[in-house]
Amino acid sequence: MLHTNLNVNEQGHLTFAGIDTTVLAKEYKTPLYVIDEDCVRRKCRAYIGAMQKFFGKDSSALFASKALSFKEIYRVVKEEGMSVDVVSGGEIYTAKEAGFPMERVYFHGNNKTDDEIAFAMDCNVGFFMADCIEELDSINTLAGKRNITQKIILRLTPGIDTHTYEAVRTGQVDSKFGTAIETGQAMEIVKYALTLPNISLEGFHCHVGSQVFDGQTFCDSADIMIDFIVAVKEKLGYEARILNLGGGFGVRYVEEDPHLDIEKTIEEISIHVKEKCQAVNIDVPKILMEPGRSIVADAGITLYSVGSVKTITGYKSYVAIDGGMTDNPRYALYKSQYSALIANKANEKADFCATIAGKCCESGDLIAEDMMLQKCQKGDILAVLTTGAYNYSMSSNYNRIPRPPIVMIKDGKSRIAVKRETYEHVAKNDL
Amino acid sequence: MLHTNLNVNEQGHLTFAGIDTTVLAKEYKTPLYVIDEDCVRRKCRAYIGAMQKFFGKDSSALFASKALSFKEIYRVVKEEGMSVDVVSGGEIYTAKEAGFPMERVYFHGNNKTDDEIAFAMDCNVGFFMADCIEELDSINTLAGKRNITQKIILRLTPGIDTHTYEAVRTGQVDSKFGTAIETGQAMEIVKYALTLPNISLEGFHCHVGSQVFDGQTFCDSADIMIDFIVAVKEKLGYEARILNLGGGFGVRYVEEDPHLDIEKTIEEISIHVKEKCQAVNIDVPKILMEPGRSIVADAGITLYSVGSVKTITGYKSYVAIDGGMTDNPRYALYKSQYSALIANKANEKADFCATIAGKCCESGDLIAEDMMLQKCQKGDILAVLTTGAYNYSMSSNYNRIPRPPIVMIKDGKSRIAVKRETYEHVAKNDL
Repeated sequence: MLHTNLNVNEQGHLTFAGIDTTVLAKEYKTPLYVIDEDCVRRKCRAYIGAMQKFFGKDSSALFASKALSFKEIYRVVKEEGMSVDVVSGGEIYTAKEAGFPMERVYFHGNNKTDDEIAFAMDCNVGFFMADCIEELDSINTLAGKRNITQKIILRLTPGIDTHTYEAVRTGQVDSKFGTAIETGQAMEIVKYALTLPNISLEGFHCHVGSQVFDGQTFCDSADIMIDFIVAVKEKLGYEARILNLGGGFGVRYVEEDPHLDIEKTIEEISIHVKEKCQAVNIDVPKILMEPGRSIVADAGITLYSVGSVKTITGYKSYVAIDGGMTDNPRYALYKSQYSALIANKANEKADFCATIAGKCCESGDLIAEDMMLQKCQKGDILAVLTTGAYNYSMSSNYNRIPRPPIVMIKDGKSRIAVKRETYEHVAKNDL
Repeated sequence: MLHTNLNVNEQGHLTFAGIDTTVLAKEYKTPLYVIDEDCVRRKCRAYIGAMQKFFGKDSSALFASKALSFKEIYRVVKEEGMSVDVVSGGEIYTAKEAGFPMERVYFHGNNKTDDEIAFAMDCNVGFFMADCIEELDSINTLAGKRNITQKIILRLTPGIDTHTYEAVRTGQVDSKFGTAIETGQAMEIVKYALTLPNISLEGFHCHVGSQVFDGQTFCDSADIMIDFIVAVKEKLGYEARILNLGGGFGVRYVEEDPHLDIEKTIEEISIHVKEKCQAVNIDVPKILMEPGRSIVADAGITLYSVGSVKTITGYKSYVAIDGGMTDNPRYALYKSQYSALIANKANEKADFCATIAGKCCESGDLIAEDMMLQKCQKGDILAVLTTGAYNYSMSSNYNRIPRPPIVMIKDGKSRIAVKRETYEHVAKNDL
């Protein structure tokens, strides 16, 4: 199977984290997000273990919670000793309500509003990943009003192009995020940040993109960042204490995707970073990394009920499900590839070529095109795999469709972590 | 200006439906959806007036409420005498709660769940736009349990390709919607529907796509549909009483888009339909049409605050706003083109080439690329025009960003119709 938490039991049913998925579908109804908590915890331990082993006790792994944000996930990653990166007041609120220690929260975003900055400070968020001049001014002003010194890390763009899909490339010079090193503007913003009395500049951040499977990409951006640290030290006399290399570790969505060895990749990066620091004669800064997708993606599946199977003679077949772009807009947005199977016929041959259509009144509401599935009919359960990241977090109420609940599985037991939306919820703010 | 409800006042501020947009932004905060109720009403009257004038008193204009669904909009279109097309239990719930007469509700969708079908019947929804065999069986069974005869209209695909963007093409043979005429399957499903005791087949439906500016496309599909009505009459002895020609009327998003003359287009279609019916010797059926986008699109604008302006030397400039793909995912999904301007500098020259970036932590979160805007800075108000359709309805809480409120304007007075979401709302179902 695609991931180790997937299996087929003797009834021929797909199991996930040890539980028969057809039983989950029956108990909680469909559509249903299922999250394997044990898998999330294993991934957290893999990152933290490797970071501490190769970069030392000072290093940190931050869960990039935009991939999957709800109260219980913050509790889980907190227990595993992760820090978190958040990208909005709403994520800060959720983390705080869940009891996450706010000093381990890193606040990202290319356009934090003043209200969010004030809210983050009032919540005692540990670090701001500051993006631009306007934000520095707001942080400085609002910290001054509170008589605090706000720790920040400056987001910079190293000018790396990972050749991934355009919407998930963020390290190139012309990104909407951060400040470019290549243009000289990064040096200018560092100089400016150092003049602001209520800000403590702790270091620099970069992020090169998504679905990166090679350590080399991180090594390349680390080289640029370390050279920049040296340049800043020489020009401004300031030496960064923290270097945040971002996230973007690749995830296996389809059989053709490679497996990423977390420990090996982090070891490779650490060897490179240490050699580079030695070569340019600086201490190795405290290293942060920000895995998000790779912590939760294969810890999640989505279960749907098949509503109809339509074969258009001479053209194609559609399998219509009771969800779609409202709970998983990634095919509509990026033509993202997924693996899927009929959960109650998991042992049968996948010899039926079908397009999986959602129930939205929109032709683009598809989950996959021309995928090989088991023959199926109304009432069968379709499992879409590797949906833990950027599915629930990107879900909408398009067509006023309520969002599915999230069920978490731990030690072979399931529980609801996010309740199913109702029609009343969807119309709650309508006067 | 792009639409007649836009103007610039003597302070050089953009006005919308007669109100200074900077005053709206100040009063209700940003991001903010604004809907010109008077404009919605004018459009409703234009459609109903033209339909009744050219197709007679029996014809109906249905507001395709997936374009914009919240309680108050159903009240407005009800008062104007429209019927509505809904696409989910959530939209039925909203219409019902708003007091919309359920006999004027037409229930669409390629995969209505049994729960939705039962809910729709319990709400006394007038018509089901039935999509497939599985749905016919469910309707028949559930109607039987209630001792009712459910009126249905069968959705068919005429095989028309409108050459619009793939995601909004729905009339072609290989659509996920309905049953194809070309393959002979439409005849089969009609034959089957006529055998079901608890169903009353009222007629046929087709929909050819979106952003259609020419009446000819509707005439072409009407030809195919009328030929099919004749074929069914000859083969099965059944004559359809209703022909629903769908929606898809084009909207002016940018200066290059044409103006659509609603009355002229419907007149053109009516002349063609009557001639065609005469030629094939059948009575003109009751004609329905389903405008959605064209009722509300230019009745809406979105107001944002500029958070930062970032020029990457030698590359490009970004204007970052306090919303983005969470309240308007159409650029991310389809690269949809919009017009925008700085509302408080509406008289100034638009000589600044900028990409409008949302606040989501995602590079693809853009509203427009390389658009000519007025020079601007933090605190300015950006107005994106023609956002009344498929903006609020497609909005999400990605990054846990709360959704903006909807303010409606009638007779120069503004009021809240949908309240702004709070952080508490976003996390409401988290345990």
